[in-house]
Amino acid sequence: MAEPLVTLTTDFGDGSPYVAAMKGVLLALNPSARVHDLSHRIPPQDLRHASFFLRAALPYFPAGTIHVVVVDPGVGTDRAALLVEAASQRVLVPDNGCWTEWACTSPERPLVRRLAEPRYWLAQVSATFHGRDIFAPAAAHLSLGVEAHLLGPPAADWTELPLPRPVQSDDRLLGEVVFVDDFGNLISNIPADALSGTGARVWVGDREIASRVRTYGEAPPGTAVALISSVGTLEIAVVQGSAARRLGAGIGVQVRVEAGAGDATEQE
Amino acid sequence: MAEPLVTLTTDFGDGSPYVAAMKGVLLALNPSARVHDLSHRIPPQDLRHASFFLRAALPYFPAGTIHVVVVDPGVGTDRAALLVEAASQRVLVPDNGCWTEWACTSPERPLVRRLAEPRYWLAQVSATFHGRDIFAPAAAHLSLGVEAHLLGPPAADWTELPLPRPVQSDDRLLGEVVFVDDFGNLISNIPADALSGTGARVWVGDREIASRVRTYGEAPPGTAVALISSVGTLEIAVVQGSAARRLGAGIGVQVRVEAGAGDATEQE
Amino acid sequence: MAEPLVTLTTDFGDGSPYVAAMKGVLLALNPSARVHDLSHRIPPQDLRHASFFLRAALPYFPAGTIHVVVVDPGVGTDRAALLVEAASQRVLVPDNGCWTEWACTSPERPLVRRLAEPRYWLAQVSATFHGRDIFAPAAAHLSLGVEAHLLGPPAADWTELPLPRPVQSDDRLLGEVVFVDDFGNLISNIPADALSGTGARVWVGDREIASRVRTYGEAPPGTAVALISSVGTLEIAVVQGSAARRLGAGIGVQVRVEAGAGDATEQE
Repeated sequence: MAEPLVTLTTDFGDGSPYVAAMKGVLLALNPSARVHDLSHRIPPQDLRHASFFLRAALPYFPAGTIHVVVVDPGVGTDRAALLVEAASQRVLVPDNGCWTEWACTSPERPLVRRLAEPRYWLAQVSATFHGRDIFAPAAAHLSLGVEAHLLGPPAADWTELPLPRPVQSDDRLLGEVVFVDDFGNLISNIPADALSGTGARVWVGDREIASRVRTYGEAPPGTAVALISSVGTLEIAVVQGSAARRLGAGIGVQVRVEAGAGDATEQE
Repeated sequence: MAEPLVTLTTDFGDGSPYVAAMKGVLLALNPSARVHDLSHRIPPQDLRHASFFLRAALPYFPAGTIHVVVVDPGVGTDRAALLVEAASQRVLVPDNGCWTEWACTSPERPLVRRLAEPRYWLAQVSATFHGRDIFAPAAAHLSLGVEAHLLGPPAADWTELPLPRPVQSDDRLLGEVVFVDDFGNLISNIPADALSGTGARVWVGDREIASRVRTYGEAPPGTAVALISSVGTLEIAVVQGSAARRLGAGIGVQVRVEAGAGDATEQE
Repeated sequence: MAEPLVTLTTDFGDGSPYVAAMKGVLLALNPSARVHDLSHRIPPQDLRHASFFLRAALPYFPAGTIHVVVVDPGVGTDRAALLVEAASQRVLVPDNGCWTEWACTSPERPLVRRLAEPRYWLAQVSATFHGRDIFAPAAAHLSLGVEAHLLGPPAADWTELPLPRPVQSDDRLLGEVVFVDDFGNLISNIPADALSGTGARVWVGDREIASRVRTYGEAPPGTAVALISSVGTLEIAVVQGSAARRLGAGIGVQVRVEAGAGDATEQE
């Protein structure tokens, strides 16, 4: 049987010695652990970015995968350190809410524990680096077969990250950009089915996106297009370009869909 | 026996949730797969960069390695998805030609198949993310021992990436910069033997590079030097600096070598 | 038993084909090697950065880990290629001194060898890329069980990297910033115990840092704070911000600690 997978997601930066130290701790406790980097480029302390990241990535991992997710502005304070079991994954994460959007995609209620057993941590715990001193060693112990309930007692409550929900108003759906990928594509929180009617019209800020395509290659380079993103929501892209730059838009910018009159002849 | 290697090369960016999703898909289908990142920093849609990258990296991998290479401006259109077997490697790649320069280094004709069997893909294939939905699962199945011919029929033709070839003209060889590495070194397409005569003179654009060295440390910091790159072509570097910045040169800039008169006394 | 770990640390850049080629060489010689990237973002030729990186990361790795560390401005010259055994780790590194700060943390004298046996290198060694042609294959052979003494004879001496030491002067301790992490936190070379007295006062350049905390979350966002870093030295941070940007400070900037008069009422 394959060794358990352990993934790492942080806001430490790709070349960070802190990431390397976490890998060392993990591999020293379990040299057979199969450690994979997911991202170390979560923007510093950006919980919404982390939230989208987890929701887009975690559903694809095999059952039992252990995810260490450290975006932790509250390190060393009395914020709790959590072990979340949801959707067959195990997530070790500060109590900052960045995992709740992902866990909501599962019908079952997550089982949340508060890491409380120092015997599964490094002997010396610093005030500024729990990724190395608490989360990585706890993950290593889990990967060695230590049962979750030994790491700490169930938590009764935890931080939820408030997420913007699209708002219906008459025949308009108002949402916003929730993620900008490295191509500059703008991923919104408007679900795909809002686009299913013919003649639906799309705006980003006050700019209408007239070209509605199934995929990037269906319009000429440079065209601003609306399409369904790979996570199933409305996305605005510029073919072979950056919508973020071209439209001057980023996270939080309003995205609006108006149901059409069955008329698909709108012009840019 | 070691599990098969699967490498990932994309233009998604290092911190992309899309890369993480591909890893999840691969590892969910084959938890024993040994997955290695090669690069996720191919500049967006830059097939020439990808082409150089593959040519520089793939020859060093063990026979049977599976390479997933996703630079895919045509995702979701009718461009084919290919499985290329060449030089003992297996490459899963959109039909965009970025693999042909590498495959040319092998004397044997590549065996190219068109991925056509949805049973080796994710159940639901999006229009915008075949890396996750087609290439990663197909690679996972290959790594599990599924035979190549089951993934799809042979392809009769495919896209070739047009590559600039150096041109001989009288006693001058005209080439160009084909890659700029992270140090700012300029790698040209002029083969090393063009430099073998004594007195050969080298220009980048209209700037002569008078210092001809075997390695960087042979000239003082700051010197612009011509040398043989680690891929066997003429390289222009600035010792402990960036030739790209110093010479204001990038991909496509002309590089010229003139055979000398057996005279090695050229001056800068 | 788990296969030996091999880590890679270079200044090649994350998307470098040179890193990919090193992985290929390693895995071709030992397909079972467990290869982990530590960092490929050491700034070009920055030995002090590499030195801090190794000191912060290597102590956490399991005994016997093989570290390939290539920051190599002198590649191809007569600088030696070393195999260092210290603190139960094995480090393959050009003779540039970037490993000595780390090795000093161990009470035992390091055992240093000069790589001298071409049979453990690639058949063809370029003048510009020993990472691929010498260090990676030597590491692969080590990981396969080749004994260290077969790779080359003991070295009698080697380069030491001169490191700034804090200087005591009356009741002041003068040190400097030795590392800036990706959050913009300034890590100094002043040991934690210099802060243990009540009323110790801290300056970065000519700016006093009046807020002394145990961890970031103890002061409001935007506050410049002094605290103990995760490597046990004085660190200056801006809560949820970048001290490097806010204070305009980087590596080499003076950090000063003055013993207080038992008076903890200093103001910013």
